[in-house]
Amino acid sequence: MSKAGRCCQSCLHYSFDYETPKTLVIPSLGVGCVFRFTQVLILAYVVGYVCIVQKAYQELDSVISTVTTKVKGFTFTNTSELDQHFWDVADYVIPPQGDHYFFVLTNLIVTPNQTQSRCPEHSNPSTICSSDSDCMEGRSDPRGSGIQTGLCVNHSDAVRTCEVLSWCPLEDDTNLPEQAVLAAAENFTVLIKNSVTYPKFNFHRRNIAPQINSSYLKRCVFNPVTDPDCPIFRLKDMVSMAGEDFQTMAVKGGVLGIVIDWSCDLDLWGGKCEPKYSFRRLDNKDPDEVAIGYNFRFAKYYETPDATETRTLIKAYGIRFDIIVFGTAGKFSIVPTIVNLGAALSFLSLLPAVSDWFMLTCTGKKDYYSKHKVTYLGEDPETESIAMDTCYGTQ
Amino acid sequence: MSKAGRCCQSCLHYSFDYETPKTLVIPSLGVGCVFRFTQVLILAYVVGYVCIVQKAYQELDSVISTVTTKVKGFTFTNTSELDQHFWDVADYVIPPQGDHYFFVLTNLIVTPNQTQSRCPEHSNPSTICSSDSDCMEGRSDPRGSGIQTGLCVNHSDAVRTCEVLSWCPLEDDTNLPEQAVLAAAENFTVLIKNSVTYPKFNFHRRNIAPQINSSYLKRCVFNPVTDPDCPIFRLKDMVSMAGEDFQTMAVKGGVLGIVIDWSCDLDLWGGKCEPKYSFRRLDNKDPDEVAIGYNFRFAKYYETPDATETRTLIKAYGIRFDIIVFGTAGKFSIVPTIVNLGAALSFLSLLPAVSDWFMLTCTGKKDYYSKHKVTYLGEDPETESIAMDTCYGTQ
Amino acid sequence: MSKAGRCCQSCLHYSFDYETPKTLVIPSLGVGCVFRFTQVLILAYVVGYVCIVQKAYQELDSVISTVTTKVKGFTFTNTSELDQHFWDVADYVIPPQGDHYFFVLTNLIVTPNQTQSRCPEHSNPSTICSSDSDCMEGRSDPRGSGIQTGLCVNHSDAVRTCEVLSWCPLEDDTNLPEQAVLAAAENFTVLIKNSVTYPKFNFHRRNIAPQINSSYLKRCVFNPVTDPDCPIFRLKDMVSMAGEDFQTMAVKGGVLGIVIDWSCDLDLWGGKCEPKYSFRRLDNKDPDEVAIGYNFRFAKYYETPDATETRTLIKAYGIRFDIIVFGTAGKFSIVPTIVNLGAALSFLSLLPAVSDWFMLTCTGKKDYYSKHKVTYLGEDPETESIAMDTCYGTQ
Repeated sequence: MSKAGRCCQSCLHYSFDYETPKTLVIPSLGVGCVFRFTQVLILAYVVGYVCIVQKAYQELDSVISTVTTKVKGFTFTNTSELDQHFWDVADYVIPPQGDHYFFVLTNLIVTPNQTQSRCPEHSNPSTICSSDSDCMEGRSDPRGSGIQTGLCVNHSDAVRTCEVLSWCPLEDDTNLPEQAVLAAAENFTVLIKNSVTYPKFNFHRRNIAPQINSSYLKRCVFNPVTDPDCPIFRLKDMVSMAGEDFQTMAVKGGVLGIVIDWSCDLDLWGGKCEPKYSFRRLDNKDPDEVAIGYNFRFAKYYETPDATETRTLIKAYGIRFDIIVFGTAGKFSIVPTIVNLGAALSFLSLLPAVSDWFMLTCTGKKDYYSKHKVTYLGEDPETESIAMDTCYGTQ
Repeated sequence: MSKAGRCCQSCLHYSFDYETPKTLVIPSLGVGCVFRFTQVLILAYVVGYVCIVQKAYQELDSVISTVTTKVKGFTFTNTSELDQHFWDVADYVIPPQGDHYFFVLTNLIVTPNQTQSRCPEHSNPSTICSSDSDCMEGRSDPRGSGIQTGLCVNHSDAVRTCEVLSWCPLEDDTNLPEQAVLAAAENFTVLIKNSVTYPKFNFHRRNIAPQINSSYLKRCVFNPVTDPDCPIFRLKDMVSMAGEDFQTMAVKGGVLGIVIDWSCDLDLWGGKCEPKYSFRRLDNKDPDEVAIGYNFRFAKYYETPDATETRTLIKAYGIRFDIIVFGTAGKFSIVPTIVNLGAALSFLSLLPAVSDWFMLTCTGKKDYYSKHKVTYLGEDPETESIAMDTCYGTQ
Repeated sequence: MSKAGRCCQSCLHYSFDYETPKTLVIPSLGVGCVFRFTQVLILAYVVGYVCIVQKAYQELDSVISTVTTKVKGFTFTNTSELDQHFWDVADYVIPPQGDHYFFVLTNLIVTPNQTQSRCPEHSNPSTICSSDSDCMEGRSDPRGSGIQTGLCVNHSDAVRTCEVLSWCPLEDDTNLPEQAVLAAAENFTVLIKNSVTYPKFNFHRRNIAPQINSSYLKRCVFNPVTDPDCPIFRLKDMVSMAGEDFQTMAVKGGVLGIVIDWSCDLDLWGGKCEPKYSFRRLDNKDPDEVAIGYNFRFAKYYETPDATETRTLIKAYGIRFDIIVFGTAGKFSIVPTIVNLGAALSFLSLLPAVSDWFMLTCTGKKDYYSKHKVTYLGEDPETESIAMDTCYGTQ
């Protein structure tokens, strides 16, 4: 054989000779059972828990969502402050359109005909005065309502307070109606249109299923049992489902979460991917808290014929409905499958070490097994034969 | 040697003696090839698919985004309802600023000079009456427009309907202009400023690249081919790119998604991290659907000289542009690398079991291989020598 | 023994006989040390880095958040354009309520008493005219302010420009006050209420911790060192913490991010899950950029006694505060634990291959070790004994 040929053959041998461990088969039912049982346990975990329960073979994506809402309803109120007043959507939904939320006015304090002028402060210990020297021109108390003019004027017949420059007359928000003015808002309904996308899977869906016909939509109202697919919600129902009372919540306002869960398993037939609605109060109703409830101030501006700017200040209490859309979609993908299978299988390859330890420590014939399994090599080539003798003592 | 010394030495041996399996090298090209080929396959999968295609060595983070928008454009309309009217941004963008969206008014129904008063209901089967007895004082039909006063009054010369307490005159939204009033809105432009953050990587970026100079920004209009970096979009172009017709959509309104994809590979030069724009209609344009299109009502409130509150009700139809920013950034991280490599490599350690099975079942010399590889241990130490003989039969 | 019995026994053997590799113990301190050291390294990585630093044993979830804000403060301005004006929340927070943001007006250009009428264009090279022939009826220049009527009229004594149909008088936004009109806005405060949810763990929390009493909340102001739990922020403080100057930013406006990081380790005592606030300017302050700062136009509409619609156009400059809530919560879960442990442990099972290679290449006694570890099987059963002789040469 030529030198090159031999070299090539040796190289081939080096690459393609197959090296396999010599093994010893031990006919021990005990060890065998432990081994098999553990193997089965690991496989059961992989198949049962990782694959079936946790769906670890799926790639995940988070939902992207768009929401439009449309409130319907009107009411008529007859209070001392507002006289007779008819309310429709343009009056009580503020702002007229929102992104992922809508606000329905339920209670309010109106301060009409405010102008930039001067008026006495509200009466409280820090504003009561007996003479002009108690007030300081230009002073602006953060707890106050305006810039002091330096005068002390009559607040009422009995009380004198510092005069301030402000939008006058001042708002008096201590007399919030104890019954919500728009108590009838509980019967208003809202149509929620929600369109979601899972960009990784190029999957789009709407909360109004295509099979729902428009005549049904015109008369239905959401009910978790009888009408779970209807996208029209009565405000009172939503508050009830959050475990709250609408009339109580309407007085001081609050924030209610309309939670839409779009969690989907896209491996199954896609049509099973449906929104699940739930409701939860998001603000703290603990009466100890500062600034309890939900309110904000806004103004409608007018111009009087003599070009003075005047405004109607409204402190609006109401329920802000936040539409919270979340969800994760999963779809089979090779990478998570490999990662999860591989990781679980790596326990399989640690198993022999554990079984060997069990066999060589806990069984009765451990010495016998050990003698045939393990060869102790001597320290030096010279003492080798002796070492061999020690190990293969039966030869 | 002392006892302590011996103990210590034995302990050292126990800890640092190296136990390695005895192996058998089999010069079978078949088995060797199968083994090597599978090894190469697994490595190719790890390197090729996991690392290069899926970038499984990266840690991921989701984008956090802020958007500001500025619409430009004006138009002049001359319709019978509105007379001559000039429209600028303050008139047609409602609300004047939004968070992740902006709304452009394209069509509208105006009901001017509404006051809280009484007027006959719209004529339909449930409201037509012949005498006062057909109407009930205080009744409030959810399909109606107000609270019935109990009177039956002339709606027109021919028809009498129940009188209601409401914002009168009532809005008549049956005559929506068939051509969008603000048809010229298609030429309006919008400047979108988008600032994104990947908090895990402390990475910030804006959609207006720093190398873009302001003179270019003053005249450019986005075009996916010629001007992909320009952040100024013509409304008509966006609707076209979503596969819709602006004039059709403008009549009844709709919701258009401006999708900005910020998916980035931060391992490469960061400058490659650029926004990709796409456009998609988000609402359902199926004419069967209830409440098709997109509209909302709002009112401008006035006060007449005699202090009566009056309002102009506007039912605004238009296109809401939702700016949807999404994206995932990936950057090399040691944990996912270890996890993915480790999981893939665990298949390597399962490979010998498979190869052995192949060798001992499918090759011609399986008995010969088996004899040298596997030693069957006898049940009992006593029968041991016989078992040995069986196994090492050639000795 | 019957045939069936033998078959059954053979089957039992096949299933429960335990096959274990024969091993060779090598008393080499060098190889042993390398092996143990690498084993310890891998275990240290698993325990130290994966488990303790990266918490890879946790399942993760992203935060869902709701925010309400309430701004407090008032000021008084005395400028030539606006005369004396008192500003409160209803005047300077626009819109009165937002979702995840609020806008505070700091500077403005007011154009009062605009009506739909005709007036001369602003003077610039493209609008200056000498006679009616320079203007074209119906022309609408995108850079202009309205629709040309075709007349050339006096803009000032010296200059004539084309007349346009528009909201007149035209806004002149070239004279933005160099000092912010509402400079005092720096002392306004905002109460931020933030409620978060980790839906996967059914975990809810608010940024106002339950142990904080309301008397503290009434007087506290956020300070990262002394009052890190106070949810009330002074606007100036927030801008300073973002590294910006309030008065500079107030002139042209800007966008400031209030970043709330809710990253939590839910394995520990839940109370440790607290918001971390940070602040960052989100818009580009580079003066080269187009449309620098943050502003938008809106109008207040009035009706004059003769029923003409008139409006006050306001170009509002100010700071938009975007509340950006992000966070990831982690909680122990079996699947990521198994995956990460398994993946790391799979390196343990690759370790023997590496140690063997080291032993058979780099140690002095490599031939001696190799001789006892590896058996080279001959090509053919016939040459077997010779091959055996070669391998077990010392016998």
